[in-house]
Amino acid sequence: MAVSQIPGYRYGDPSLPPSSISLDDLHRIQQALLFTEDDVRALRRAGEILAPQVSDILDVWYGFVGNHDFLLAYFSTPDGPDADYLARVRARFGQWILDTCRAEYDESWLAYQEEIARRHYQDKNKTDGVQGAPPFIHFRYVNALIYPIFATIRPFLEKGESDPAEVERMHQAWLKAVLLQVTLWSQPYLREGAF
Amino acid sequence: MAVSQIPGYRYGDPSLPPSSISLDDLHRIQQALLFTEDDVRALRRAGEILAPQVSDILDVWYGFVGNHDFLLAYFSTPDGPDADYLARVRARFGQWILDTCRAEYDESWLAYQEEIARRHYQDKNKTDGVQGAPPFIHFRYVNALIYPIFATIRPFLEKGESDPAEVERMHQAWLKAVLLQVTLWSQPYLREGAF
Ligand code: HEM
Ligand code: HEM
Repeated sequence: MAVSQIPGYRYGDPSLPPSSISLDDLHRIQQALLFTEDDVRALRRAGEILAPQVSDILDVWYGFVGNHDFLLAYFSTPDGPDADYLARVRARFGQWILDTCRAEYDESWLAYQEEIARRHYQDKNKTDGVQGAPPFIHFRYVNALIYPIFATIRPFLEKGESDPAEVERMHQAWLKAVLLQVTLWSQPYLREGAF
Repeated sequence: MAVSQIPGYRYGDPSLPPSSISLDDLHRIQQALLFTEDDVRALRRAGEILAPQVSDILDVWYGFVGNHDFLLAYFSTPDGPDADYLARVRARFGQWILDTCRAEYDESWLAYQEEIARRHYQDKNKTDGVQGAPPFIHFRYVNALIYPIFATIRPFLEKGESDPAEVERMHQAWLKAVLLQVTLWSQPYLREGAF
C-alpha cells in the first residue's frame, strides 16, 4: 500500500504540531542508550531485509496480542475485538517497521513520534473514529512490549543475512531504536516535567 | 558487605509501604514481556557468575555515568559530583545486581521496587540526606539506561559460562528482568491511572 494511502498515517505531515522534545534532547537520549551511526547503518540494512516480510512479522505480533486478552482489550469494544480498528492500525504498524529502519531522527520524525505517543494515550481511538474501546493504553504494557517486539524480529533478520555477527548488530540496533521510541512515547503519560 | 550493613538498603523491610501493584498485575506484565520460569532459572545461574564480579561491573556503569555530564549531574550539587552520595548508592546498586538475579517476585520484592522508584523520583536524595542535588531523575534517562545496563553485562556472563547458548539465555533473562523493573519504576512518574 502506498504510504499516502494508509488511512490516518501522518509521518511527514507538516501540519502536525512540532515536538516539545528538541534535537539536543534527542541526541542526549541517544547517547544514554549507546545509539550511534553504526546503528543507523545497521537499521538501513535491516529495513531491506524486513520490507518483504512485513506482513509475516505483523502476523506474529497480532498473534501475540490476540493471545493475551488483557492486550486485545485495547482493540475491543463491548461487542468484542473491533476488526476494522485492528486492520487500520495494522497498516500503520507495518509502515512503522519500515520507518523505524529508515528514520532520519529529525524534527519531522520527532513530531510523528509525539503523535504516536498521543495515539496510545490521550488521542487513542480518534484517528480511526473508534467508539467504546478503552480510552488509553496503560504504560506498563507499552514499555513491556519492547521485549517481544525486539525478540521476535530476530528470525526475520536471519532470513536475510547469514553472518551471525551482522544479524546481531542489526538486532541490537533494532532494540535501541524501539527502546528510544517508547522512551519518547512516555512523554504525554508522565507528570509535568518528569520526562 | 553484609546486606544489613548497606546504609539505606531496605529490601525485605516489613515497615515499607506495600506496593500498589498486585501480584496479578505483575504476572500480566511478566506475560507481556515473555518472562517465564526459564528466565528465573537463568537469572539464578547469572547471579552465581556475577556475584564475584560486582565491583568490576559497577566500575563499568559508574564509568559510563561519569563520562556523561548530563547523567553525572544527578549525583552532583553546585560543588560538583558528591563522592559520598556516589559511594552510598554504589553499595546499594551492587546489591541490586544480586537481588535482580535472585528476585522472588513476591510482595516484599514489589514493595522494594516501589521504594526504588520513589528514590529516582519524589524521594530522591532523602535516603542519603543529600542537599543540593537535582530533586529527581528524568524518566527519559531511566528508561534509556536499560540498554547499557543490558549490553554491558554480557562480557561478565561470558567470563563464567563457555556455552554461547547459555550465555544468550542468561543475557535475555537479564534484559527482561531490567525492563520489568524499570517498567514498575515508571509508576510514580506517571499521571494518575496511566500506569
Ligand atoms: C513496544 C511497544 C509498542 C509499539 C512499538 C507499538 C507500535 C504502534 C504503532 C506503530 C502504532 C500505529 C501508529 C500510527 O498511528 O501511525 C500503534 C497504534 C496502536 N497500538 Fe501500539 N505499540 C506498542 C505497544 C502497544 C500496546 C501494549 C498496546 C496494547 C494492546 C498497543 C495498542 C495499540 C493501539 C490500540 C493502537 C491504535 C491507537 C489509535 O487509536 O490510534 N500498542 N502502536
Ligand atoms: C536502567 C536504569 C537504571 C537502573 C537499573 C538503576 C538502578 C538503581 C539502583 C539499584 C539504585 C539504588 C536503589 C536503592 O536505594 O536500593 C539507584 C539509585 C540511584 N540512581 Fe539509578 N538506575 C537507573 C537509572 C538511573 C539514571 C538514568 C540515573 C541518572 C544518573 C540514576 C541515578 C541514580 C541516583 C542519583 C540514585 C540515588 C537515588 C537516591 O537519592 O536515593 N539512575 N539506581
